[in-house]
Amino acid sequence: MKSICAVEGVNAWGIKEGKFGLTLIQAEGTAAAVFTTNLMKAPPIRLMEERIKRGSLGAVIVNSGCANAYTGNRGYEDSVTMAGYVADSFQIDPESVGIGSTGVIGRYLDLPLIKRQCETIAPLVERSAKAEELAANSIMTTDTFAKHALVQRDGFSVAGIAKGSGMIAPNMATMLAFIYTDAEVEPSSLKTSLKSASNRTFNRVVVDGDTSTNDIAICTATGAAGKTNQKDLESALLECCRSLAIQIAIDGEGATKLIEIEVTGAPDESSAEKVAKTIAESPLVKTAVYGEDPNWGRVVAAAGRAGVNFDPDRVSLTIGEGETVNELVREGEIVVDLNLAKKAMAGKKVVFSLDLAEGDAHAIAWGCDLTEKYVEINGRYTT
Amino acid sequence: MKSICAVEGVNAWGIKEGKFGLTLIQAEGTAAAVFTTNLMKAPPIRLMEERIKRGSLGAVIVNSGCANAYTGNRGYEDSVTMAGYVADSFQIDPESVGIGSTGVIGRYLDLPLIKRQCETIAPLVERSAKAEELAANSIMTTDTFAKHALVQRDGFSVAGIAKGSGMIAPNMATMLAFIYTDAEVEPSSLKTSLKSASNRTFNRVVVDGDTSTNDIAICTATGAAGKTNQKDLESALLECCRSLAIQIAIDGEGATKLIEIEVTGAPDESSAEKVAKTIAESPLVKTAVYGEDPNWGRVVAAAGRAGVNFDPDRVSLTIGEGETVNELVREGEIVVDLNLAKKAMAGKKVVFSLDLAEGDAHAIAWGCDLTEKYVEINGRYTT
Repeated sequence: MKSICAVEGVNAWGIKEGKFGLTLIQAEGTAAAVFTTNLMKAPPIRLMEERIKRGSLGAVIVNSGCANAYTGNRGYEDSVTMAGYVADSFQIDPESVGIGSTGVIGRYLDLPLIKRQCETIAPLVERSAKAEELAANSIMTTDTFAKHALVQRDGFSVAGIAKGSGMIAPNMATMLAFIYTDAEVEPSSLKTSLKSASNRTFNRVVVDGDTSTNDIAICTATGAAGKTNQKDLESALLECCRSLAIQIAIDGEGATKLIEIEVTGAPDESSAEKVAKTIAESPLVKTAVYGEDPNWGRVVAAAGRAGVNFDPDRVSLTIGEGETVNELVREGEIVVDLNLAKKAMAGKKVVFSLDLAEGDAHAIAWGCDLTEKYVEINGRYTT
Repeated sequence: MKSICAVEGVNAWGIKEGKFGLTLIQAEGTAAAVFTTNLMKAPPIRLMEERIKRGSLGAVIVNSGCANAYTGNRGYEDSVTMAGYVADSFQIDPESVGIGSTGVIGRYLDLPLIKRQCETIAPLVERSAKAEELAANSIMTTDTFAKHALVQRDGFSVAGIAKGSGMIAPNMATMLAFIYTDAEVEPSSLKTSLKSASNRTFNRVVVDGDTSTNDIAICTATGAAGKTNQKDLESALLECCRSLAIQIAIDGEGATKLIEIEVTGAPDESSAEKVAKTIAESPLVKTAVYGEDPNWGRVVAAAGRAGVNFDPDRVSLTIGEGETVNELVREGEIVVDLNLAKKAMAGKKVVFSLDLAEGDAHAIAWGCDLTEKYVEINGRYTT
């Protein structure tokens, strides 16, 4: 098993019929969640914000195909009803059911369909490779592959499945992540650790967690593995989230390349993050990467509009990683070899490292290239 | 004559050889300018920031094909040298020469080429339709048409030429505008009027003035028409800038449609502007417009992440203008007729009007759709 079902106490199943999928994950335990900060929060998000306050969950239900967003009070009631189906099937407290939705905005849920799907798959939930595969597949929308992560540490595991694919900007690209651990942990520690890990991973992918109407990452800790060192858990959670975040970036709508932007020498981490994300979001950087065009000027120009103060004449910029690193700018001086730079763009991953020469802080952001295919996918989404 | 040469005292000419163009405009008078706020200001911008302090100009020289950006002290010296060519040709004070550059970043100017082009066209400057056409054509890069505007009022005129075309985001899309009036005006008033007009026009196109390394708008007042009412001049300048701004939006790289976003009912103009620009910038809105896909949920979702507080359950949204207005959302309730909404997207201009129901302020932003062609243009720019 390569993700959630490797964690003791986690059973799952999924079903996909055309555009409409449903995933059930049954796992009792301490729980925490992070949400979109978009003002237009979808009803399922509003419901989860309330429910997560109790610090525990018994199961999660997620539908794909309809975001149940911008659907007002009726949408909220529909979310409550949808969660109720799981409670009935598993005979658990309705208040302990977590919920997520992804898909088109401004349409109501097809509740009869969801009820039928839920009743069909609830008896099937199990702890198996097939179960986690179906669970990850059924929450996909424009995703081209299912996202799994598993981090195994001495005595405990952290694992997750995720969906997320639209990503040209920190925009409407719904990202859902369901993470499980068998570590035993207090709700407040779990919340802090999840928040910190999300900030450094999901929120640094250019589909970032704070702008869709429906984004949510939930972590449930079953406690089956007993107490663990808090630092170890934090590091495992960070690694699990990073793996899912990078998979989401790779699967950016229409993307052919992963872009990694590392900013070093920043006065503080938040400045480093701001610069890294501004570069990763730049449509001109994204199109240049797609075309393998070593137009590195766009990278420094994007940095210059990030709202962070630094001296353009002292920055250094490289492309590539490991043995293939090529210098583009050294302390403000252009030293680029365009042929080598072009070569460094040929692979599936393009790395730019920018040293601001202003301090010791650093941050990494991930994105993907912008292609004709993105336009095609998003130009005809509802029709 | 349809632009600058309609203004008394303005002579111009231009030359374009392959990617490399040069425009000269000879006009003595009071002058003001607005600039990019990008930290990575190109050397020609740094030079102009100093020169404009004297409040007058004698001529302007603009090259296309090389932005002379990120070229350090050598780039700055090159800008001084380039301006010197015009001073020699026209026998004017070198300090009175304005300058602009647009094109690829991180490359040095080809000074021998610019010198030759300057010496070739300096004797040709004149006040004619052909002159203003050549001047506007020679500053184009990926522009598909030259931008001209002329506003004639009782006793005076305001006219301009502009270039600008890359525009998926407030990004690296260099915008240059050269505006002339024969009104007589004090440098400080001209500066205030130009700034105000730019803020409501150029800075509301999604290629906005504050983020490229090379953006500049210069206005020179020859004074040939004598004193005018300040309010009249302001309104004519605003109209001239708006016309140029909309032409820039229409000519967005790869664009097929102009997008106009009107936000009303805002608590203040700056909030209205923020929401309007966030919507106009959204790649998902832009692709939906391209595909004529009435996915209006993306419009409200973009509004929700603009950083402005409002009640999503009270907003109203329409599509279309004049007799073809269609309601999508009325005070938070979905009232869309998808077929009518789709019809409203069929033309060359798509208008969304969003009423936030929070106050009386309003603002308009302009953008364009995002197409496969944009990706093609920007994926292979330097090569």
